[in-house]
Parts: sequence; structure tokens; C-alpha cells
Amino acid sequence: MHLLESTIAAISPASQASALAALARQDELTKPRGSLGRLEELSARIAAMCDTPRPRLGPGAIFVMAADHGVTAEGVSLYPPEVTAQMVANFLSGGAAISVLSRAAGARVVTADLGVAVPIPPAPGLWARKIRAGSSNIARGPAMSREEARKALETGIEIFETEYAALPFGIAATGDMGIGNTTPSAAVASALTGLSPAELVGRGTGLDDAGVARKVAVVEKALAVNHPDPADGLGVLAALGGFEIGAIAGVCLAAAARRLPLLVDGFISTAGALIAASLAPAAKDFMIAAHASPERGHRAMLAHLGLEPLLDLGLRLGEGTGAALAMPLCQAACRVLDEMATFAEAGVSDKE
Amino acid sequence: MHLLESTIAAISPASQASALAALARQDELTKPRGSLGRLEELSARIAAMCDTPRPRLGPGAIFVMAADHGVTAEGVSLYPPEVTAQMVANFLSGGAAISVLSRAAGARVVTADLGVAVPIPPAPGLWARKIRAGSSNIARGPAMSREEARKALETGIEIFETEYAALPFGIAATGDMGIGNTTPSAAVASALTGLSPAELVGRGTGLDDAGVARKVAVVEKALAVNHPDPADGLGVLAALGGFEIGAIAGVCLAAAARRLPLLVDGFISTAGALIAASLAPAAKDFMIAAHASPERGHRAMLAHLGLEPLLDLGLRLGEGTGAALAMPLCQAACRVLDEMATFAEAGVSDKE
Repeated sequence: MHLLESTIAAISPASQASALAALARQDELTKPRGSLGRLEELSARIAAMCDTPRPRLGPGAIFVMAADHGVTAEGVSLYPPEVTAQMVANFLSGGAAISVLSRAAGARVVTADLGVAVPIPPAPGLWARKIRAGSSNIARGPAMSREEARKALETGIEIFETEYAALPFGIAATGDMGIGNTTPSAAVASALTGLSPAELVGRGTGLDDAGVARKVAVVEKALAVNHPDPADGLGVLAALGGFEIGAIAGVCLAAAARRLPLLVDGFISTAGALIAASLAPAAKDFMIAAHASPERGHRAMLAHLGLEPLLDLGLRLGEGTGAALAMPLCQAACRVLDEMATFAEAGVSDKE
Repeated sequence: MHLLESTIAAISPASQASALAALARQDELTKPRGSLGRLEELSARIAAMCDTPRPRLGPGAIFVMAADHGVTAEGVSLYPPEVTAQMVANFLSGGAAISVLSRAAGARVVTADLGVAVPIPPAPGLWARKIRAGSSNIARGPAMSREEARKALETGIEIFETEYAALPFGIAATGDMGIGNTTPSAAVASALTGLSPAELVGRGTGLDDAGVARKVAVVEKALAVNHPDPADGLGVLAALGGFEIGAIAGVCLAAAARRLPLLVDGFISTAGALIAASLAPAAKDFMIAAHASPERGHRAMLAHLGLEPLLDLGLRLGEGTGAALAMPLCQAACRVLDEMATFAEAGVSDKE
């Protein structure tokens, strides 16, 4: 069996029994019932993922997948494509937003080149797994072959598994880098949710209204040219995706197979999560939506996955920055569940 | 000059020049302009507070003020008043929600008895500064004398200053413990914002509709009996407040006087913040709203202070728990501003 199929086969739903045990314990802790709101619910979801009523989350790992996109030829981004490689260098030297925010969260960043257009010199800490020097222009044809799509997914799984074997982590997160990648993400989301391009195309790194209109037309053309089958997640990735989006989907599948909580970052990561969920619906049980992006359609994509975002701070950077900010909330939720005293232990009177 | 007056006199507005310098630096950092949304704005506000374009925040201190309330005789809470003292013991032994969340945030908890009804044995880490064994029933008369109100405020200032002198902190936060204290908080908020009790009275620790209606009537009675003058913040505290609410207001003033960012927790803390702002309007410049509580009227109270909450997680526990969860966001915002590479430093191309 191929790595993709064996990973999907290893995914089963999160444990309802552990979620109920966690909620029962929350009701015994020294606070009015339910008074920690979504933190209680989050602790129960993580308990279900880890299949234990009192999960302890070790430090996290944030997987930042980078690739370029042929569709930038259509003028969908304000930044030149060489920025993708420049930002990978910035990740490696620790100067990017995700570098800072992962340090603040006590998490490690795993950086991978899945398909950056220009050669990147080997560097410590870089996974050099270029599938091709950028996907093809989706306005003209498929982004990649089915074999390349499978390779993107399996590379995500392999990186996750190798990193976990080298140094286990308690929670994982996704991140992305790729100039132009809100365009393929919107196209993937349209194919998998049934929402129209106009409902899913936003300003990206700062397009004006005319730029957004042009981007909507590009996504409409990509859908018309490639006529993706929404029941075929691998085919949607091949038709419309990007190499980093496929690797993010692979990370989502690997986390679910390993029963680890997985923070999904913003718009591009959610496109990857949609592909993962189309391949293995139970993978949704292991996803936590880090934040709501102001990018149009992001909330609808999350709703399609049954996810409610933790943060709403107007973040639209990607890289995993929202996931890094949400990670301490997940760890804190589990610590509350594990470390708080019960009414009985603390000798506190319960409600009359 | 008394401590209260000298503290108020030391408060001046936050520095607009430092805020602008911070925003200018944000625009040079390796990300699309504005793409970190409210995190950028937060970094600029903190820069203005600390009056430096690149503030570095050390670990935080969370001031949890406890007291009891005579108004519980009116049946406004589901929990018996002895819980206040029991929870203070729980704070000191590290088993409460704020104990766990402050550990998670790397912050210290400062616990103070301002007016708990029963004697609390001296304990390491407890500020024993009981003004009286619980405030009087505000439905029958004033909560306390003006002298007691001043003492509550000055005790908050003194605790803050003594703790800072012993071990400086980079950011402060407020928290509360007091069975029944959403009732005086709603009364204080009504007096200072002009909103009606019905717009400000919520379920507290879990009242049903009949309980809420009874609580609205109690707050209406408290306002009718005490006829507070909204221009007299000290008088509002004396008429309607609680000793912990006064001490929280004192902490707000002390933080502003020292130009330190101050995270305001939930409903009760915001009532304290309203008193501080009525005594020294510029104190608002140093307040950060940690979260939006589902307690009715909380968002309106924050709006009155010109504050927008960072988190919206359905937290309604108090103790400073929302502030502890928001503290890492403030620290992360400053680290982004300070540690990220600029386009020039990283050799990244800016927008075309």
C-alpha cells in the first residue's frame, strides 16, 4: 500500500468517550460550570483527539510549506514571485513573523521547499523536497499531474513523520509560503465547497477592487478549464492546487493518523485542510481552526469543515502565524483540565 | 498629597509619537503591510504606553483582588459567600483556574484580601489588607464610606507599587474574586455609562431568567437608594462598589502612572476600569481589553472605555483568567515589532 493510502486507512474518528470524560471533569473543577467557555470545549476536543481524558500537550511543531505558482503570470499578486525564495531564507534565518511567533509559542518551525521556482541552496533546517520549480498556470490547464499531487501529499506525510520520529511534538500546525497562493486556494475551496469564486476570492496581500475582479475571473477560468470533480480530492489538488497546499493536506492527514491535534492556520492552510477532509472525512476531528482570516470566504471554508475559529484578529499573513498565536490557547486549555483542583480537592462549596 | 491624588497627577496620555514610530517600523517588516491586523495595532498601542518604538515586555503580574458583598443577602448569586474565602485558599495553593493560566502565561499571581467576610489565616503570598469583612448591602444603602472607598483605591495602588519595587513586571493584569460581585459591577457600570440595569445585568455564575429579573430589580433599587453622581468616581465606588472593585481601579491607576500596559479582565475588572477612567481619563490609554465576556453589557462597558476586546471565547469566570490568556498575545505583538527582520535586512523584495 502506498503511504497516502496507508495514512488514510490509519485515520479513525476522535474518541467521544474521552471527550465526555473531559467534560465531566471540567464540571468538577473549581469554577462555575461552563464558565471557561470555549476553552472547556477545546479541552474536550483535544481529549477526544488524543483519546485520553486529561491530555498533556508537549511543545508544538509548525510545518511551513513553500512553493510557487504558475498562475502568478495572470497578475494575481502584488509581490513578485522571487519573494517566495527570499522568505524561505528569512524563515531559516529567524527573521520572519512565523520565526518570531513560533519562538514566542515555544514551538519549532519546520520549513520545506515543495516547489519554489528558483533553486534554494541547501541549508540546515530546510527540507529540500522540490517536486517541480512551481506549479503550472491553472488558468491554462492543471496545476500538476496526479502523480505530482500524490507526491505533494506524501511528502507532507513523510516530513511530519520524520520530524515526529526525530523529536516528538504534542501539537502540530500548518503554515504556507507561496506568492500567488490565495488564487489556487480559492479555486480548491470553490471546487470542494461548491461556493462560487466571487464568494471565495479576496484581496490576498492587498489587491484593489479591479485586482479582485481580475482574480475572480482567473479562478472562474481555472474551474472552467480544469472541470474538477469535487468527489476526487486528489484530482482537485492536481487540477487547481499548489505543491505546498498538497503538503499541508498531507500534514493534516498525518496528524489525524497519529491522533495529534492540528492547528489549521488561515486561508491557504484551510484549502489544504479541505483536501485532507475530502480524502479522509474523519481528519476533520483532529483539526482546530486557529483564526478567522479577513480573506473573503475563509469563514465559509471553516464552516464547511465544521470548525469555529479561536481567534479573530484580522490576520492575513499566512506562514502559520495565526496557528502560532492560537497554540498557547490549546496548551492552556489542556493544562486547566489537567491541573485545576476539583471542588472536593480544594474544599470549595459547590453551587447551592 | 494623598497617594490617590499623587497617582492621578502622575498619569499623562500615552505617546502618539511612539505609536507612529511603531507603525512605521511595522510597515518595514517582512510581511504585507497591515497583514498582522490587530497584532500590529496592539504593538503600537503598547509602544505608546511604554513611550518607546520597540517595547520589550518582561513577564507579567496578575492582581487578583478578593472581597465579599453584603448584597448577596438579596439572593443575587447561586454560590454561598463562603466560597470567596475558599477560592482565595485555592489561589494560594495553586489549584484555581487563574493559578493554572498564570503558570501557562509565565506570569505571577498577586492575591489580596480586601474585604473577605471571614478571617483568612496569614499565608505566604497573601496580601492581608481587609478593609472590612464585606461591603454593605447596596440595595439598602452605600456599599462603604468615602474613606473606605479611598482606602480600597489606595490599597490597590500600594500593592501594585510594592510588588513592582520587589520584582518589576512588564505588563500587569487585573482579576477579581467575590461571590455576588457582578451585581455591584453592573450598578457601577450603570452609574458611569448611563446604560440601564436591564442592559448591564447578566446571569453571573448561572442565574435563570427569574434570577436575572430579581438581580435587575436589586441594581435598580441600589441606584434609587444611593443616587450616585456619575461625575464623582470615588462616590460611585462608595455607593455601589466593592472593596475588590476599588482595588482593581487602583491597579488601573497605578499601571497608567507607571506607563505599563494593563490587561483588563472581564465584567468586574471592567467596572473597576470604569472607576479608574472616571478619576483619570488618560488611564484608558494604558488599558487593553483582554476579552469579551458573555455577561450582558460587557461589550458596551468596553466601548464606553474605547476598548475592543482581543479574545471572544465565552469566558465568564473572572479571576483574571481572560487577561492571563490574552497576555501572550501582547508579548507576541511586541516581539514581532522588535525581532522581525525588515525588507532591507532580509533582502526581501517589497511590493511591486
